[in-house]
Amino acid sequence: MKFCSDCAHPVALAIPEGDNRPRYVCAQCDAIHYQNPKLVIGSLPVWESDGELQVLLCKRAIEPRYGYWTLPAGFMENSETTAEAAIRETEEEAGANIELGPLFTLLNVAHVHQVHLFYLARLRDLDFAAGIESLDVRLFSERDIPWDDLAFPTIRKTLELFFADRVKIREGGSYGFHSMDIVRPMRAASDPG
Amino acid sequence: MKFCSDCAHPVALAIPEGDNRPRYVCAQCDAIHYQNPKLVIGSLPVWESDGELQVLLCKRAIEPRYGYWTLPAGFMENSETTAEAAIRETEEEAGANIELGPLFTLLNVAHVHQVHLFYLARLRDLDFAAGIESLDVRLFSERDIPWDDLAFPTIRKTLELFFADRVKIREGGSYGFHSMDIVRPMRAASDPG
Repeated sequence: MKFCSDCAHPVALAIPEGDNRPRYVCAQCDAIHYQNPKLVIGSLPVWESDGELQVLLCKRAIEPRYGYWTLPAGFMENSETTAEAAIRETEEEAGANIELGPLFTLLNVAHVHQVHLFYLARLRDLDFAAGIESLDVRLFSERDIPWDDLAFPTIRKTLELFFADRVKIREGGSYGFHSMDIVRPMRAASDPG
Repeated sequence: MKFCSDCAHPVALAIPEGDNRPRYVCAQCDAIHYQNPKLVIGSLPVWESDGELQVLLCKRAIEPRYGYWTLPAGFMENSETTAEAAIRETEEEAGANIELGPLFTLLNVAHVHQVHLFYLARLRDLDFAAGIESLDVRLFSERDIPWDDLAFPTIRKTLELFFADRVKIREGGSYGFHSMDIVRPMRAASDPG
C-alpha cells in the first residue's frame, strides 16, 4: 500500500494512538488502513458407491501451483457465510453439486496471513466438470490420491485427517473437528543465506 | 475505496475478466482491490471455585456499543494464528492470563462481512484488569449475566450455547463445537421505509 484509498495522499507506516503496531496511516485525512488475514474456504466432496469411497480433487488451471491438485476452495467473499463460500467454490471450480456436512478442519497459515476452513461434503450426483480455474476434476480412491502433486499443505493435512478419521469410524468413532497450524518449512542449517 | 492504493489513480467498480462480481479496479495500473470478510476472535474465560463457575466479561470503552458488555475479542491480525489472536485480545482487553481450550463457536455475521470465533478458556489467576478498550472487567455467575446489556448477538449466542452445554455436561456430555449464522434482524412489516 502506497497511497490512501480514501484521498490519494501517500500513506506511511505509523503506530496510531491507542494502538501497538504499525499501520498504513494517511497524514492528510487521518484514515487508518488495517490489513487483516483472509479466509480460504473449501469442501472435501466424497462419493460412495459399492462400499468404495472416492474424493473429488481439482487440477489447478491458475497460479500459484498451476497443474497441482487441490480440494475445491477459494477466498471467502463479503456478504456470504462460510458454508455458502464452500458451496460456491465447489460449484465454481468443480461444477459439483454438494450436500454440505460439518466443518472439518481449521488450518492457520499465519506466514501468508490466511486461515483455511474445509467442510465435509457429499456429492449429490456425478455431473461435475472443470470450471474456469481447473484443468481437470476427478474422483480418487485413497490409494490413488496424488500425494506428491497436491497444491498446498492445508490440502494434504485435510486429506490425511480425513482418512485417519475414516479408520476411527470403522472402529466405531466419528469425524472430528480438527484445528491445526501450518508452519512455514524451516531452512536447513546448512542453507546459505 | 475511491483511489488505487498502488498508484493513486481513481478506481471504479468493474467485473474483471474471468471473475463474476464487481471489484474496485484501477484503469491506470490494472490492480484489482479485493475486499474480504474479517475474522473477529475472542475467548470465553471461566473461573471455577467452590463448585461455582463464573465468566469474565468486559464493559466496552469504545464504539460501537460503548458501555455494553462483551467477551474479550477483536480483529485477528496478520502473522498470528487464531489461537494467538484469542490469547492476545484477552490480555489486551481484560489483562487476563488464560489457558486456551478448544474452539467453541464459529458465527457468521454476513451482513457486516465478519466471521466470529470464540475459544473456551480457563483463567490462570484473578489478576485481571480493564485494558485501554474496557471500562470494567468482572466475573459473572450465570444468574448475573447482563443479558440485556450484551454488546453483540455473537456474544449472547456464545454464552447461551455455553450454559446449554454446561447442562449437558452435568448429564454426562461434553462441550461441542457450534457453527451458526447470525441473521440481520428483519424490519417489522409495519416499519415505514
